[in-house]
Amino acid sequence: MALIVQKFGGSSVANPERIKRVASRVAETAQSGQGVVVVVSAMGDTTDELIELAGKLSDNPSAREMDMLLTTGEQISSALLAMAVQNLGLHSVSLTGGMAGIRTEGVHSKARITGIDPARIRREVEQGRVVIVAGFQGMSDQGDITTLGRGGSDTTAVALAAALGADLCEIYTDVDGVYTTDPRTVPAAKKLDRISYDEMLELANLGAGVLHPRAVEFAKQYHVPLMVRSSFTKNIGTLVEEEAQMEQGMIVRGIAHDMNVVKVSLVGVKSRLGNMHRIFQSLAESSVNVDIIVTSVAHEGVSDISFTIDHDDLSRALPVLKALGPEFGGADFELEEDLAKVSIVGAGMISNPGVAAQMFGALADAGIEIKMVSTSEIKVSCVIEKARAHDAVRVLHTSFGMDGAESVVVSGLNAAE
Amino acid sequence: MALIVQKFGGSSVANPERIKRVASRVAETAQSGQGVVVVVSAMGDTTDELIELAGKLSDNPSAREMDMLLTTGEQISSALLAMAVQNLGLHSVSLTGGMAGIRTEGVHSKARITGIDPARIRREVEQGRVVIVAGFQGMSDQGDITTLGRGGSDTTAVALAAALGADLCEIYTDVDGVYTTDPRTVPAAKKLDRISYDEMLELANLGAGVLHPRAVEFAKQYHVPLMVRSSFTKNIGTLVEEEAQMEQGMIVRGIAHDMNVVKVSLVGVKSRLGNMHRIFQSLAESSVNVDIIVTSVAHEGVSDISFTIDHDDLSRALPVLKALGPEFGGADFELEEDLAKVSIVGAGMISNPGVAAQMFGALADAGIEIKMVSTSEIKVSCVIEKARAHDAVRVLHTSFGMDGAESVVVSGLNAAE
Repeated sequence: MALIVQKFGGSSVANPERIKRVASRVAETAQSGQGVVVVVSAMGDTTDELIELAGKLSDNPSAREMDMLLTTGEQISSALLAMAVQNLGLHSVSLTGGMAGIRTEGVHSKARITGIDPARIRREVEQGRVVIVAGFQGMSDQGDITTLGRGGSDTTAVALAAALGADLCEIYTDVDGVYTTDPRTVPAAKKLDRISYDEMLELANLGAGVLHPRAVEFAKQYHVPLMVRSSFTKNIGTLVEEEAQMEQGMIVRGIAHDMNVVKVSLVGVKSRLGNMHRIFQSLAESSVNVDIIVTSVAHEGVSDISFTIDHDDLSRALPVLKALGPEFGGADFELEEDLAKVSIVGAGMISNPGVAAQMFGALADAGIEIKMVSTSEIKVSCVIEKARAHDAVRVLHTSFGMDGAESVVVSGLNAAE
Repeated sequence: MALIVQKFGGSSVANPERIKRVASRVAETAQSGQGVVVVVSAMGDTTDELIELAGKLSDNPSAREMDMLLTTGEQISSALLAMAVQNLGLHSVSLTGGMAGIRTEGVHSKARITGIDPARIRREVEQGRVVIVAGFQGMSDQGDITTLGRGGSDTTAVALAAALGADLCEIYTDVDGVYTTDPRTVPAAKKLDRISYDEMLELANLGAGVLHPRAVEFAKQYHVPLMVRSSFTKNIGTLVEEEAQMEQGMIVRGIAHDMNVVKVSLVGVKSRLGNMHRIFQSLAESSVNVDIIVTSVAHEGVSDISFTIDHDDLSRALPVLKALGPEFGGADFELEEDLAKVSIVGAGMISNPGVAAQMFGALADAGIEIKMVSTSEIKVSCVIEKARAHDAVRVLHTSFGMDGAESVVVSGLNAAE
């Protein structure tokens, strides 16, 4: 029997009407003779409401208790979905993450999955039941309830698909697939039928919020075919799979942008072995994620170091930066906010030199200044002024021949959730 | 170290303000050097809201999924209370019923506790943590979440107190103890300082909703001293304990009333071996609880059988009664609604003959007709017209010398929750 894992996000189960619609969809798949395991997020605003409640009781609630609190959201939606599926005449059973055999580290609020024991799910599926699993959660070796952090329900779905050897993992969302770029910015954006794990990973990391990067990494690692599709239409979505299985068409497959970039420059840092390590270690210890790093050639024993961070991390970064100055011989730091990062992604770049040059040329022709550059085998990113970010995406979309015939505008698409 | 179990009901944790107040109370006990294990119900209306949600998704939701759904209510309130206790500077940890080691039958919505493994709670208490346990729930041997049915949180508290060998189990509620009768009916009602398990059991079964009968039975079986007290005042409540430890004061300790009584009379039932069994077996199979049973002496081979049932069971009883008629030689049945049962309870009755006679006399003097009578070693119940029930309680309260000096009126007291 074919086995399929289907994941529905919070907006797909936001109210009883939508849960019923999801139940019909699930029932249809089950009635076609496939085994179905469903992963659900919490209903719409449930998580936010619970966070607000916690805020009224503690200034700084412990991560363990937040996990106990927030995991009820998925338990509620999974029980309700099981009832709705039963109401259509099918057998169904809901399971918490722990009951579904999802084992994690003991770290709260962002635990990693350490293993999955799929015995219970297998038994339920074999007995003809549609299994509904509460997403985003697991159980530690200590028997405590943990959460997987942001994008956790995607990760639950992919991990279960891997552990069960499922034939397909479908991620239902409010957009109907992965687009070449955000159609709100570029009406000519096209839906991609297929995309490789690596390309999806770059797009996901770059702020295309359709799929969480951790889930894509997991899918790549365990060779789980992923389908991103809409819970509101029957349209075929985008299949994320091994690169080898894809026909190479466009060199650039997608364009992503991130509007939350801050550039930090440390000026006049004494060139000394271990300085780089000290700086970025200090930032990491304060949970500041550093993205692009550029260092100048040392000149008379000092050099400049520039890097970008997310705007959300700025308040945590500032005390670290202030403390670092004296240590490195009075080095000062400068901040540049209101920046954006625009990236082109495509596995075909590896064998096509000149892609970066074409990108720089297109931006220059449009009068857009490039402040920093970062490249990987399948990606080129440029940091530019935030005000010109949408222009840049449009220009690049045309330059790389991605403007499609149809003009589709779907809300929420290719943008951070 | 002394160990105390404290149980707080839904109204005590109905909102963040009240949860904070409970946290202060718990913290005070912990800071006095006692180990504290707290059992909480779901916040105020949570359970009703979840039931309403379920009703929108299924006409007849399965008991298993209802358990998955409803147990989130206690998980939420226990996590929030743990946060509030932590916010006062103490260490605290919340546990679901399953995590707390509460094992139950696999029956959903009304599982019985089959065993408790207190190792986890013990370890947490030894490490100086205030342990908050979600009431009303447990885990079956199959690893499924179960609920204990009505009064479940009281039962959780008493069962944990028994398993942990706690020195005391405090049941916090919205009344400040057990009263001689409902003060709304009899302003002269007095709070009892002490009451025996058996007396409490009779009062609990008779509709005095302060404590659930199952919890009292459990406490009696495992010799757990129970204290019923108010979560809104610091007053000492009522201690429920072994009869041997009590001084015998009043012969009648409490008066309860039940306003939901229906009397059924089967007229002209052929006297045949096994008829009684057939009748009450049929009613039991339809989940009709029968209370008082009276049979007339057989006359010319036929007799009359009368019994009382709860008004809520009437619709289930009617088809059974209609089906029984032909089987017993055309016996007919009569119903008498608008009845009440008034009961006097007291362990001292055993050694004081004439208590029943005094009760009948007091009622007769007040012109109240007695329709049925039932007695046990520590209780006498009379079925009377519902319209005279409050008069009866007042008359009996005076007749048995229970009118106290103070006139306390507390809402909700000695009445069904």
